[in-house]
Amino acid sequence: MTASRPPLDRLLSPRSIAMVGASNSPTRIGGTVFANLARAFPGDVHPIHPRDEIVQGRPAFRTVGDLPEPVDLAVIAVPAAAVVDVVAECAAKGIGGATVITSGFAEAGPEGRALQDRLTQVSLETGIRVIGPNCIGYMNAHDGVMANFMVTVDEPLPQPGPVALVSQSGGFGSYITNKAVLAGLRLGWFVSTGNEADVNVAGVLRHLVERPEVGVLLSFVETLRDPEVFIDTARRAAELDKPLILLKAGRSEEAARAAMSHTASIVGSAQVLDAICHQYGVFVASTMEELLDLGTIFQDGRRARGNRVIVMTASGGAGVLLADEAGQSGLSVPVLPEEEQRRLVSDMPVPFYGSAANPVDTTAQTTAMPDAYRKVLFSVAASPSADLLAAVTWARPGPANDAIVEMYQSTDKPVAILSTAWSDQFQQAGVPTYTDPRRAMTALAALVRHSDRRPAGSARFTPDADRARAVRELIPGDQSTLLESTGKDILARYGVPVTREELVTDADGAAEAAQRVGGPVALKVMSYQLPHKSDAGAIRLGLRGPDAVREAYADMLAEVAVRAPDAVIEGVLVQQMAPARLELTCGVQRDPVFGPMVAIGLGGVLVEVLSEAALLRPPFDVADAVAALGGLLGGRLVSGRRGLSEAECEAAAQVMVALGELALELDEVTEVDVNPLRVADGAVLAADALIVVRRD
Amino acid sequence: MTASRPPLDRLLSPRSIAMVGASNSPTRIGGTVFANLARAFPGDVHPIHPRDEIVQGRPAFRTVGDLPEPVDLAVIAVPAAAVVDVVAECAAKGIGGATVITSGFAEAGPEGRALQDRLTQVSLETGIRVIGPNCIGYMNAHDGVMANFMVTVDEPLPQPGPVALVSQSGGFGSYITNKAVLAGLRLGWFVSTGNEADVNVAGVLRHLVERPEVGVLLSFVETLRDPEVFIDTARRAAELDKPLILLKAGRSEEAARAAMSHTASIVGSAQVLDAICHQYGVFVASTMEELLDLGTIFQDGRRARGNRVIVMTASGGAGVLLADEAGQSGLSVPVLPEEEQRRLVSDMPVPFYGSAANPVDTTAQTTAMPDAYRKVLFSVAASPSADLLAAVTWARPGPANDAIVEMYQSTDKPVAILSTAWSDQFQQAGVPTYTDPRRAMTALAALVRHSDRRPAGSARFTPDADRARAVRELIPGDQSTLLESTGKDILARYGVPVTREELVTDADGAAEAAQRVGGPVALKVMSYQLPHKSDAGAIRLGLRGPDAVREAYADMLAEVAVRAPDAVIEGVLVQQMAPARLELTCGVQRDPVFGPMVAIGLGGVLVEVLSEAALLRPPFDVADAVAALGGLLGGRLVSGRRGLSEAECEAAAQVMVALGELALELDEVTEVDVNPLRVADGAVLAADALIVVRRD
Repeated sequence: MTASRPPLDRLLSPRSIAMVGASNSPTRIGGTVFANLARAFPGDVHPIHPRDEIVQGRPAFRTVGDLPEPVDLAVIAVPAAAVVDVVAECAAKGIGGATVITSGFAEAGPEGRALQDRLTQVSLETGIRVIGPNCIGYMNAHDGVMANFMVTVDEPLPQPGPVALVSQSGGFGSYITNKAVLAGLRLGWFVSTGNEADVNVAGVLRHLVERPEVGVLLSFVETLRDPEVFIDTARRAAELDKPLILLKAGRSEEAARAAMSHTASIVGSAQVLDAICHQYGVFVASTMEELLDLGTIFQDGRRARGNRVIVMTASGGAGVLLADEAGQSGLSVPVLPEEEQRRLVSDMPVPFYGSAANPVDTTAQTTAMPDAYRKVLFSVAASPSADLLAAVTWARPGPANDAIVEMYQSTDKPVAILSTAWSDQFQQAGVPTYTDPRRAMTALAALVRHSDRRPAGSARFTPDADRARAVRELIPGDQSTLLESTGKDILARYGVPVTREELVTDADGAAEAAQRVGGPVALKVMSYQLPHKSDAGAIRLGLRGPDAVREAYADMLAEVAVRAPDAVIEGVLVQQMAPARLELTCGVQRDPVFGPMVAIGLGGVLVEVLSEAALLRPPFDVADAVAALGGLLGGRLVSGRRGLSEAECEAAAQVMVALGELALELDEVTEVDVNPLRVADGAVLAADALIVVRRD
Repeated sequence: MTASRPPLDRLLSPRSIAMVGASNSPTRIGGTVFANLARAFPGDVHPIHPRDEIVQGRPAFRTVGDLPEPVDLAVIAVPAAAVVDVVAECAAKGIGGATVITSGFAEAGPEGRALQDRLTQVSLETGIRVIGPNCIGYMNAHDGVMANFMVTVDEPLPQPGPVALVSQSGGFGSYITNKAVLAGLRLGWFVSTGNEADVNVAGVLRHLVERPEVGVLLSFVETLRDPEVFIDTARRAAELDKPLILLKAGRSEEAARAAMSHTASIVGSAQVLDAICHQYGVFVASTMEELLDLGTIFQDGRRARGNRVIVMTASGGAGVLLADEAGQSGLSVPVLPEEEQRRLVSDMPVPFYGSAANPVDTTAQTTAMPDAYRKVLFSVAASPSADLLAAVTWARPGPANDAIVEMYQSTDKPVAILSTAWSDQFQQAGVPTYTDPRRAMTALAALVRHSDRRPAGSARFTPDADRARAVRELIPGDQSTLLESTGKDILARYGVPVTREELVTDADGAAEAAQRVGGPVALKVMSYQLPHKSDAGAIRLGLRGPDAVREAYADMLAEVAVRAPDAVIEGVLVQQMAPARLELTCGVQRDPVFGPMVAIGLGGVLVEVLSEAALLRPPFDVADAVAALGGLLGGRLVSGRRGLSEAECEAAAQVMVALGELALELDEVTEVDVNPLRVADGAVLAADALIVVRRD
């Protein structure tokens, strides 16, 4: 019956365990892991040992084949060269999964890489699931599975709780588990995936998000191998109201190199990953401590009904810092109504030199009067003017901290306590504790954002085969960089507003076209050999009237003939001049991990100076795009006095959606660059377009 | 002899002390403060008490007048209404200074404000120096002065050390002292200044920076009352190689309100304070923990010879995070030369699956072998390829941490240890310890910046009285907003390049002027009633040839006559059109705390969208201005492909210097706005100028 469960379930929630490489020596990894397994697991844990008949008091089997039954989980800590055969034996025996602790695989050079490829092969062929190699193992505290050496056997086992941590790096997992225990974070799961020969971070998260005992998912990644699975996990996490928090390593060049060397993995673009997380409601922690801080605020499952925080403090300075950070995190610190203030003051010592406005500054005198402190604290927690509570205390036991614990347990509002240090009392009681004002408010603000989230990534898109076919007919078979005129034709098919223009082949035709286009025009030479027109003099701007057009036409072609004599000229584009208040740039790039990404940012001259862009992964809808534009330049692109109007913002968003559809429909398009996308008078207009297609 | 020392010396380094309001009740503030004084001070501490003959075992005097001698310091904790008289008595007795703990002054409303004004008056009239009121007192651990209630008498006294903390907020001081002890920061001084009736934060910092036992200055401020003293302190701190680190509260509107209520002080602009700090080499900590983190890295007095950091870790993941943060903090993590790597690997366990490239990932195996760990650690610390060392450890005692302490003491390189938590062992040994990769690298990067600093604020400026007089003749006596033409005339006197232009009064004059100006011109109506020309149709652009100029002139005046019939027209400016690649905006504003500030940022349409500006306080030199421009937009304004060239950057810097001189020379100028300052072809040109003068 065991064998009928899915292999990943058997691997991660085993009912029986064997360990190959179990050792009697307590200082060896094989000894530590076996001792951890044996002390925590309520079911059978069989040591496998080629010579020793007893390992740590339990009868050993000589080989996997000798086991009396096909266990669910095999933990493997034998030399690298032996691993593949042992895993194959496990598969043959009908074991569900293996956790391979052993190092010396892809991280150790070409020979190790070959070993790892064989391991992957065995997993694929036999269906056995494999965690590792080169990992620290995993912990499932709910089922008592300590298949790891992240703690030594003399250290206590972590308190099980709703938090799950998944990390490629095993050392980091051990490190953060240690810190989590100090911070009062209750980890129920820790899985290190190491080199990810089979199971990877995304897959483990996808598995854990469905488990009822898991309420918060933390992850430390250096690379994401299954982007679709990750995005699917993010969607499920949002549906199930389980926050997913990511700490991404390898953001800088320096770190990327380090990450590649120690896990043998390719590091994707940190900017794209950030954008993906933002789009699908995943929190990106910017530091190790923030990962823990967010886990701490989410683990009690409380949600916020609004963003108003009330701050209670006996240190005016700390109160001001908390208010500062609240404001900067997007929370509000409302002044309490007179009536509430009067009630609070009536419980304070007399004379009272603090403030009841919010921050409620009780002064040290109130703290010295336990009854008054308790009364004020409970009133503050019950204030109808606030959705969240932050209070300041010292990490020394006493009536103030007793009152805080009692208050915390009596309310369902989210609470963050600023303390000088972690305290045992608060940890036992599960009171979310922070040692810095910013950290407390960052956590509360994340909670508010999560409580108030929009549905993540609900947009769907069905490719339009007819349109795709029609557009493909516009793409010449022998070119990779398309002409601007072709690019704009294609964009127009997707509903992108482009400049009025005509392709002509002589000066008279140009003059006539200019008449039809209307207003001042530009002339641009179309040639596959001249992607950078201005370098070759292949462009003329601001021409009015037939004479000027004809004259400029002749002059331009003469100049091109001198500067680029070998260029084959396909025609000349007569294009409407489009004056603009602002210029944007909008385009598509393909990320090696996440595929097509639509980018938008300020364009024109400033595209080099201001490299900030909003990125979205298609499909997405206009509302998603509007939200992304709203996040650019600290919100000033849409709120600034001369920034985008509502109509312009919507129009730009529609261009983004269109480029996303283009990218999904036309696999061969590797790059689209609309620069500038001109903004004026409530509309946008593509004034130039570059499309690159793959030739293979 | 005591009396011959300066009063502030007597106040802060007393040889004898009296306390008015000393109490026999240990739970009262007057009891706690007296107990702290008595247990720490080696000299005389006299209690003053109206009735009790003995206070905490010491004979009490009935009044200050009864004291046998004029002590240096009087600590005062009597009810607010009595404070002023007591301080006056102290002054009459010849006491050097008073520390007033009592609350109920400016923070408590108009009556308290009046009391505080009287206190200030007494100090000014008699020369007695006063700390407080409404403060927690101060600590001078070197001389055993615990004139405060920041610790209770059952708590240990802080270990004296080179770090001084000055804070308006007393509660914050107590809080941070508590945290400092946990973090291993050795505070020798803590001064809370409270309401600052006399002595303020800047004055205390100015005093402490000269003291030989002080090596690092930390400050928490909500407002700065003596900007000149603060800047002077920053200059001295830089000269004496003593880092000065500031944590500023009241950055958000919310917090500003809180700060004003609890210390009754006006909060200045956080942005201006940041700029001032940057200009004069003061570190601005962005969080409470960063204030401590920077104090920790600076307290051992080590300096960096470069920015290359070597990272040693047994957790690959933590190593990657450290490398990430190093890169983002501006440090480099160089790959070690092959030879060094070989030597390191030769000391590692075999087989070795880590990395010696940097981060040096020793893997958990090495940590388990104390001799190998020690050897590798010492080699890493001695590496000629790095200037700084960061190492990762767990906060559990053992041979690895013993080796770290020994290594730390054997090198003079700056070291930052990333640990899961603070440890007693590292604190005792003074090993700078951090609990997050970012915090460790932020601290090391600050150390590098400090070690490599330029001389702070050395620019000097002598006003040119002749120029000022000549310029004042251009300013009409009855207007506050000057005409654009006058503004540009004034700018030209300071050497700012302005557009070629002439003021005319009829169409023919305009046509002739256009000829002399050359190229296409703009026409602008000059009228004090039309500061916003385009709103009234008072501007025409891009005119070529006398006919076009004449026609536009008539058309423009006709439009203005309709749209602004009451406007008195002073003339029409015929101005050169100045095409630009980039537009900057440059101006002068006067900050209520720091006075004139010169600002520069991206201009044109984007000034509203991109609100980032570099700010400098005059006087400053071109090199200061170039450095400030280099910091804009993450450095991309000067490094971006189409950003400022070196010549353009220098030209813009010269405009900034000129505006600074103008602001220093002409007190009545309250605002200058050059927008746009056009940038093209290696030069800048002021195309519009607004100058506002004070009329009072």
